[in-house]
Amino acid sequence: MRQLYVIGLGPGDPNLITVRGSEILSKAEVVFVPYSTGTNRSLALSIVEKYSKAEIVTLGFPMKKDVDPKDLERIGEEICSKSKSLSAFVTLGDPSLYSTFFRVSNYLGCFNSVEIVPGVSSITACASKAFMPLALRNEAIAIIPADRLDLISKVKQDFETIIVLKGNENLDKISEELKDDYDLLYARRCYLDGEKVIPWSENEYDKDYFSMLICKVRNNEKG
Amino acid sequence: MRQLYVIGLGPGDPNLITVRGSEILSKAEVVFVPYSTGTNRSLALSIVEKYSKAEIVTLGFPMKKDVDPKDLERIGEEICSKSKSLSAFVTLGDPSLYSTFFRVSNYLGCFNSVEIVPGVSSITACASKAFMPLALRNEAIAIIPADRLDLISKVKQDFETIIVLKGNENLDKISEELKDDYDLLYARRCYLDGEKVIPWSENEYDKDYFSMLICKVRNNEKG
Repeated sequence: MRQLYVIGLGPGDPNLITVRGSEILSKAEVVFVPYSTGTNRSLALSIVEKYSKAEIVTLGFPMKKDVDPKDLERIGEEICSKSKSLSAFVTLGDPSLYSTFFRVSNYLGCFNSVEIVPGVSSITACASKAFMPLALRNEAIAIIPADRLDLISKVKQDFETIIVLKGNENLDKISEELKDDYDLLYARRCYLDGEKVIPWSENEYDKDYFSMLICKVRNNEKG
Repeated sequence: MRQLYVIGLGPGDPNLITVRGSEILSKAEVVFVPYSTGTNRSLALSIVEKYSKAEIVTLGFPMKKDVDPKDLERIGEEICSKSKSLSAFVTLGDPSLYSTFFRVSNYLGCFNSVEIVPGVSSITACASKAFMPLALRNEAIAIIPADRLDLISKVKQDFETIIVLKGNENLDKISEELKDDYDLLYARRCYLDGEKVIPWSENEYDKDYFSMLICKVRNNEKG
């Protein structure tokens, strides 16, 4: 009987993991920590190590947009071969939002059960730091990665809130497109070292992958 | 010196609160628990009581869409008059997503500091129960309350994922609009009594306010 728990670690502050996530980490025999070159491997590790004495297995994930399924199959095999009765796979933020877990989930047939423990996402974490509501009443929210320039002009003015993620590119162009209708907030690495939550300014744009633009429509008459 | 912590309790399972949220509840002297007629007052209370021995003050919020600011001002005054050095205000889910807190936040000038502690939202909580990614790679997500029928046809096919919230109305109409292009999942009261996470079926539609439709585009060629 092998069980896998997929645990959302939250935005980065070790205390923003869920109670359930922390309890499972304290019991797990092995914890899988995925990383991509250039991201916060040490961050996820430091959260895990706060709660767990388990064996740690780090898993290098390819960064490319088009990943060879064979690479993912190989990672799945590594997880299966190193798993124990109670194993955990951790992701920063929430496992359902842009996480690595669902890239390998099809290759984990060795487990008798897999349960996802949701976490606080970086999106609401940044909103809490900015002290702003992402939505009230019947407002609508669009969450759009920064390379989807096509979508920005299409959804302009239909959504009270537009959140542009993965802001290492294009935020300058997107802010130009939206600035007449929306108030723009630039949020970077919320709850992490290097945190910055400020009104958008081209001069402060540091093209960080872990940054986002939170855009709130002005003079909302739809709500 | 009066401090207010606004704590996201998560979707309903008491163990899905954050460690930080639970720690603040254990120290708070008074905890404000908002409720609206017909919602889960007892649920929020039971989570609070698991972690806290504080005095509990329940706050009735008006349910109407257009609320008289005087009502909110009165609630703000009640919070201020009953607050202590370390006070907490709790919301189910995350405080930045459709919560009561931001309706009264302008009337809380009595506090020297207010900090928001983010929580797991019902959206990712339902995704975890459904064992599905809301977004991978550069997919985009639209979050739309069910009374915004105007938006559904506008965003159709532009977003890989459409989440329709507050599903006590219109989900039958919306599913008709989307069913040819999207796979539809009906998720209701995730992590609560009465939980239901099933493929959409008109026969199972119980018009529950705490329900949502999660729509994933088929044959995605944009990602």
